[in-house]
Amino acid sequence: MKADFINPFLKATVKVLSTMASMTPKAGKPGIKEDETSKGDITGIIGITGEMEGSMSVSFSESCALAVVKNMTGEEFTELSDEVADAVGELTNMISGDARSQLQQMGHNFTAAIPTIIRGKNHSVKHIANGGPTIFIPFQTENGNFWVEARFAPLI
Amino acid sequence: MKADFINPFLKATVKVLSTMASMTPKAGKPGIKEDETSKGDITGIIGITGEMEGSMSVSFSESCALAVVKNMTGEEFTELSDEVADAVGELTNMISGDARSQLQQMGHNFTAAIPTIIRGKNHSVKHIANGGPTIFIPFQTENGNFWVEARFAPLI
Repeated sequence: MKADFINPFLKATVKVLSTMASMTPKAGKPGIKEDETSKGDITGIIGITGEMEGSMSVSFSESCALAVVKNMTGEEFTELSDEVADAVGELTNMISGDARSQLQQMGHNFTAAIPTIIRGKNHSVKHIANGGPTIFIPFQTENGNFWVEARFAPLI
Repeated sequence: MKADFINPFLKATVKVLSTMASMTPKAGKPGIKEDETSKGDITGIIGITGEMEGSMSVSFSESCALAVVKNMTGEEFTELSDEVADAVGELTNMISGDARSQLQQMGHNFTAAIPTIIRGKNHSVKHIANGGPTIFIPFQTENGNFWVEARFAPLI
């Protein structure tokens, strides 16, 4: 996965969180994911096909997810309910959509499947592709952290 | 999701497990997933696009995953290592591929993304689609249970 593919995901995440949840997450330095030690409590995952194949995910700590979804919906949630899961799926879809639109402007065409949402304390996500690393972009908010991961590569 | 879409996933799962892991899992009665109470320790997830959009997943208890991957590789594993995760991803890919091939013979064309693997004690998976239920197929083995879930619907 090329380095210039990272920026669209970073910019899309900041844009979607700002627009949908009135939050301005602070992006940390993107890096290569070396192991599966990043553990979240709720994750939206979406498969990417087209010019390349792979997947992207958005993982939240519970506190961060509850704060983001409260800002999105105006409702207070105390647990990772179905409504919170649906909202995380919607955010994942929007981040993937905005990133793909930027990639298209760079001449790269990707399509995406529908997101799936995982709930469970401290789960990790392993992305697979026909080569290349998994990119990891950490974000900070006042209510905890979340991160975006993506990995895709040309079909063999 | 139509009822006659269930059988391809059931048959594909039995076939792949028999071929790859010399196991004959006993399929339980497929049903509609009503809530997120089915909790696995390792899950392979794959996005489905094409004529319909959605996702499918294969979730294992830890004991079942370790036994299946031991049978696949001939190696003994004591934890859900990267090798076990890769093997679960491979199984997910093969089950999805075989099911899609059967669906194609029924006149339905689907493509699939690359699987993603989740690890974490007792996580649940929420599938999203533009309608229809999530289908749940339970399987029993001597070393614990696993299950396949799928949900897809036409694009709106």
